Amino acid sequence: MMMTSDWLTSRVQASPQKTALIIGEQQWTYAELDQKVNRVCARLVDAGVESGDFVGVLMPNCLEYVCLIHALARLGAILVPLKTRLSAAELQWQIEHVGCKLVLYSEELVDELSIVNSQWSMVNESWLDGDLSLTINNCQLTIDNYQAVVFTSGTSGKPKGVPLTFNNHFYSALASGYLLGVLPDDVWLSCLPLYHVGGLAVIWRSCLYGTAVNLHPRFILEDVNRALDSLPITLISLVPTMLHRLLETRRHWPASLRLILLGGAAAAPELVERANGLERKQLTIDNCQLSIVNSPLVAPTYGLTEAASQLATMTPAEAAQKPGSVGKPLLFTGVEIVDENGRSLPPNAYGEIVVTGPTVIAGYFNAQRITDSDSSFNPHPSSFHTGDIGYLDDDGDLWLVQRRSDLIVSGGENVYPAEVEAALKRHPAVANACVVGLPDAEWGQKVAAMVQLLPEVSLTESELLAFCRDRLARYKQPRLLKFVSELPLTASGKIARQEVMAQLADD
Amino acid sequence: MMMTSDWLTSRVQASPQKTALIIGEQQWTYAELDQKVNRVCARLVDAGVESGDFVGVLMPNCLEYVCLIHALARLGAILVPLKTRLSAAELQWQIEHVGCKLVLYSEELVDELSIVNSQWSMVNESWLDGDLSLTINNCQLTIDNYQAVVFTSGTSGKPKGVPLTFNNHFYSALASGYLLGVLPDDVWLSCLPLYHVGGLAVIWRSCLYGTAVNLHPRFILEDVNRALDSLPITLISLVPTMLHRLLETRRHWPASLRLILLGGAAAAPELVERANGLERKQLTIDNCQLSIVNSPLVAPTYGLTEAASQLATMTPAEAAQKPGSVGKPLLFTGVEIVDENGRSLPPNAYGEIVVTGPTVIAGYFNAQRITDSDSSFNPHPSSFHTGDIGYLDDDGDLWLVQRRSDLIVSGGENVYPAEVEAALKRHPAVANACVVGLPDAEWGQKVAAMVQLLPEVSLTESELLAFCRDRLARYKQPRLLKFVSELPLTASGKIARQEVMAQLADD
Repeated sequence: MMMTSDWLTSRVQASPQKTALIIGEQQWTYAELDQKVNRVCARLVDAGVESGDFVGVLMPNCLEYVCLIHALARLGAILVPLKTRLSAAELQWQIEHVGCKLVLYSEELVDELSIVNSQWSMVNESWLDGDLSLTINNCQLTIDNYQAVVFTSGTSGKPKGVPLTFNNHFYSALASGYLLGVLPDDVWLSCLPLYHVGGLAVIWRSCLYGTAVNLHPRFILEDVNRALDSLPITLISLVPTMLHRLLETRRHWPASLRLILLGGAAAAPELVERANGLERKQLTIDNCQLSIVNSPLVAPTYGLTEAASQLATMTPAEAAQKPGSVGKPLLFTGVEIVDENGRSLPPNAYGEIVVTGPTVIAGYFNAQRITDSDSSFNPHPSSFHTGDIGYLDDDGDLWLVQRRSDLIVSGGENVYPAEVEAALKRHPAVANACVVGLPDAEWGQKVAAMVQLLPEVSLTESELLAFCRDRLARYKQPRLLKFVSELPLTASGKIARQEVMAQLADD
Repeated sequence: MMMTSDWLTSRVQASPQKTALIIGEQQWTYAELDQKVNRVCARLVDAGVESGDFVGVLMPNCLEYVCLIHALARLGAILVPLKTRLSAAELQWQIEHVGCKLVLYSEELVDELSIVNSQWSMVNESWLDGDLSLTINNCQLTIDNYQAVVFTSGTSGKPKGVPLTFNNHFYSALASGYLLGVLPDDVWLSCLPLYHVGGLAVIWRSCLYGTAVNLHPRFILEDVNRALDSLPITLISLVPTMLHRLLETRRHWPASLRLILLGGAAAAPELVERANGLERKQLTIDNCQLSIVNSPLVAPTYGLTEAASQLATMTPAEAAQKPGSVGKPLLFTGVEIVDENGRSLPPNAYGEIVVTGPTVIAGYFNAQRITDSDSSFNPHPSSFHTGDIGYLDDDGDLWLVQRRSDLIVSGGENVYPAEVEAALKRHPAVANACVVGLPDAEWGQKVAAMVQLLPEVSLTESELLAFCRDRLARYKQPRLLKFVSELPLTASGKIARQEVMAQLADD
């Protein structure tokens, strides 16, 4: 018997009355969610969606989005979550790249976009409360089917599509659960976007565990703080920027909180220490004040879209003892450090991080391959080369030295310099450009660019920034621009990135 | 990539320093256990054990047994756990039935047996501390391989071999963990024999979770109580008889205990209520006494060897609200109630319990089939007919009415022993009762009861029969009553119905 991929159906049978989702003041059980998903299924079928179709979704985190995730899975259609911050040109490219049959959007996000056409369909509350409902039991769907194609910033200009199977999510949820613990009353506060694997994974994980998600449209400091103080939140996923902002406002953690999963960028040991040092809420019982034992809370993690989120995670107790490491690879995940020739390196030697295991994708999206017979598409390759540099210590704990050469991580989002450089160079006045990440207290890193103009042209900073706004998502746009007559070069004639970084940091 | 079945290797990579096993005053980490398993592997290979061989094990619960379980899995050999209380003839039959290449035993268990021959090999401590060690990485082993053939008592004379795959255990562990919760510091007290699926499953579950097992040779009241009072036990598997005996001696549960998994026989609601009513240990902090909130602890479960242990389990909170039910089927497990023609029945109708899902075996051991090409042996049939009678209520909760083999048919009327037993147990002088059907010339079967009275009470047969007359239809009333000081029990602590039947038939 092949395992089903319609996990919501399995979950509803196992625990229909447990809370599935909490958004703001509202909450829904798994049975209630299931009913709404059946209505969404009817709408999708009405719109012509069939098993194997790619469906783009351009929406903020909301109930409708969660229902769409389950409904597409139930129909065997493949979710293509689109970043809400992309420019019209970026969106159009991704939609065409995978060949979306349909793009679903919520009104507020496409007001300014001129790309809505007959292929687009607006989702609103009526999708969840209509008279039509479709109960589907699709036995053909198995765990090896694709659940989503999530885009990551590419190193060579264009983003890459990461095709995640249900199997990838299944083993990610399992290994994460066994490592961090699962309790029947867990409530996971998720303020990461659902188009990010870190947000998407929380939905599947909680559905498999039968636990609740407290979903936020995005990280709004007051709302997250209010949820922490009013709901029995036990787990929360954060990127360092968010944790930083929470620490600025909170005097204690709620007693219910048992773990902060900290990913998306290298976590400074000081940040982890500060978060662990914040006291848990005190309880008062019969005039007797009881301090909850302040066991550490923060679990630093190293994740990749290509590995369905967490790859290695350190438990809070270990992280407090060994600050800076991201811990051991998850159960069934293998990590190897290799040199430039692909040879395996011993402990403590720096090299490229290579990962294997059931959460790792077979390869990037390739329109030709993915539509071929699945049997020719080996669902798991022997290994995935991350491009990130790190080492394994004597205990087998992983240390992340540097993200793929020049990757910039700003507010938890990956920005590949090549993509920003390509956009800059498209301006007719630009001869060359070099983009680097500079340290930033709030965002971790900020995007900075050094630009060499063609001779005898004139261009202002604001003109070039306006040019970027049409082509790049907001978080990718340079915060700092410097015009130079010539970019610094290395002896071999390549752009001297370290030198560019040093000069920009001086400014 | 196929999933490996060498879970100890995966576990050691993920958490080598976590505690794996606690026996008495000794404990071992996963890394330490792994080293011992490598030594056992060397011994097994030396004894000629190869992948695909069946290996009998006749030992009490001990470190050596746990090492053998992992070592056989690592070699791809199949464990045949032999009940320690069998007669020589019964053992011989089972060993020949599966065709064991080797039988491993510990000295104390075969003293009186005359069956030891060259096929038998004695295991002692030297197996764990020898110089020889074998590190094996057998990539050919997958989750679809057989882990063990466990014998169950057959209803029709000979025991049946239940071939369990790693896949069966994998999904059992997953669904159990997501239902009952997994915490990184869990310690599972296991006093069920390892030849019983309830004992065996705890080993695999804990290995996958990365948590600890506190293993007891068997249920020895003082030892179990001592462990509860000195170790941070969080979970314990018990059958009703064991729980009953614990309740007679304990004044409170330790604060660490979060769940009692109660299986192996129908749990009387009164027993569950008494166990839930026992207070948790009180903590004293700075002269301030704090009572731990007495949330319910007991999770009644309905398990089958044929489904790798739990099939349906009710969480403690639900069980306290709905005493008598065994709860909903586990995640990915399906339960249907069918009539005699195999037709599906609606809620609340009595019928045979039919189960589907990834924990369910493909069929009983059949020497011919199992040695054939595995591809012809469908690893999961569409359904398994349990032979047990029950119903699903409107909420989807399962109620176990009767194990079918015990059903008494008297004068054309169905009599469920459980109902008669419940009536007898309602008498204040009755401690326990077992009801069986005896052959009867006139009625086909007649109802017979063996009754254990509470100490130092007096009750006559006619008084108890009069008590029954008020509570049971005429055809359900016992025609034969026997008072005993103690009901006969099986090795795993269940009432030995066959023995009761034999004794009553003799009278």
